[in-house]
Amino acid sequence: MPTLIYASSQDCEAAFYRAFETADLAAMMAVWAEEDDIVCVHPGGQRLTGLEEVRESWRQIFAGGPGLRLRLSHVMITSTLQTAIHTVHEHLSVPGDTRTRVPMIATNVYLRTQRGWRLQLHHASAAPAQPAEAPREPRNTRPPLLH
Amino acid sequence: MPTLIYASSQDCEAAFYRAFETADLAAMMAVWAEEDDIVCVHPGGQRLTGLEEVRESWRQIFAGGPGLRLRLSHVMITSTLQTAIHTVHEHLSVPGDTRTRVPMIATNVYLRTQRGWRLQLHHASAAPAQPAEAPREPRNTRPPLLH
Repeated sequence: MPTLIYASSQDCEAAFYRAFETADLAAMMAVWAEEDDIVCVHPGGQRLTGLEEVRESWRQIFAGGPGLRLRLSHVMITSTLQTAIHTVHEHLSVPGDTRTRVPMIATNVYLRTQRGWRLQLHHASAAPAQPAEAPREPRNTRPPLLH
Repeated sequence: MPTLIYASSQDCEAAFYRAFETADLAAMMAVWAEEDDIVCVHPGGQRLTGLEEVRESWRQIFAGGPGLRLRLSHVMITSTLQTAIHTVHEHLSVPGDTRTRVPMIATNVYLRTQRGWRLQLHHASAAPAQPAEAPREPRNTRPPLLH
């Protein structure tokens, strides 16, 4: 595929989620910065770094083909000239499956490169089932249950 | 407390984890950018935004006082003139408690402000118990188990 130039972090983010929804590995990898220091943390997953690890993870995720629907909400963006920090809620669903699912909370960091805006970091984690749940960083109670 | 100026994102990060370890709420809030768009996601938690929500979450976490030990590893930094993206593994422990715990994976984004480097975003999630675990973004198997 020809190299795509994303003129804004929003364009790059739209391409990222379109690639996710369509399970298009080439399109997915086209949104990432071509660097060894890219970072991807899937929900409940370990930290993956570099193009090879990141590509392999999406290859596995896309192995079953497309079928997901993805809707975003709670989009917040903070940007400088060279960097844009997006946080979003990802609402994933499968057509015909009416089960209620918690959203995924994603941090997406985009960098302005010589080839336009590219994704540098994606860190996703499941939101709690109860929105009003107390924070879960460790408390210093004994016996301690850090998490 | 007098306003502290962090000359680098590393200095700001060191202050962040020192405040965490010592359960010092004033020191913790001194590392954050003083903005409505700061973001904090504790492990398993919802997305918190703005100084008030972020402060309240740390106040609850620190309510039991200090007692944790915190060690970092796997520090990766990507920076531009105005932004630094850190990802780290946080190893939390309680002295005398020998249970093995999974590390927390944290994304910390720092911005260079007029008052030095400040923390803009902290997103933490638990690493999987098995380091080699497959990625857990949803696969398109049926019946679908998104997460």
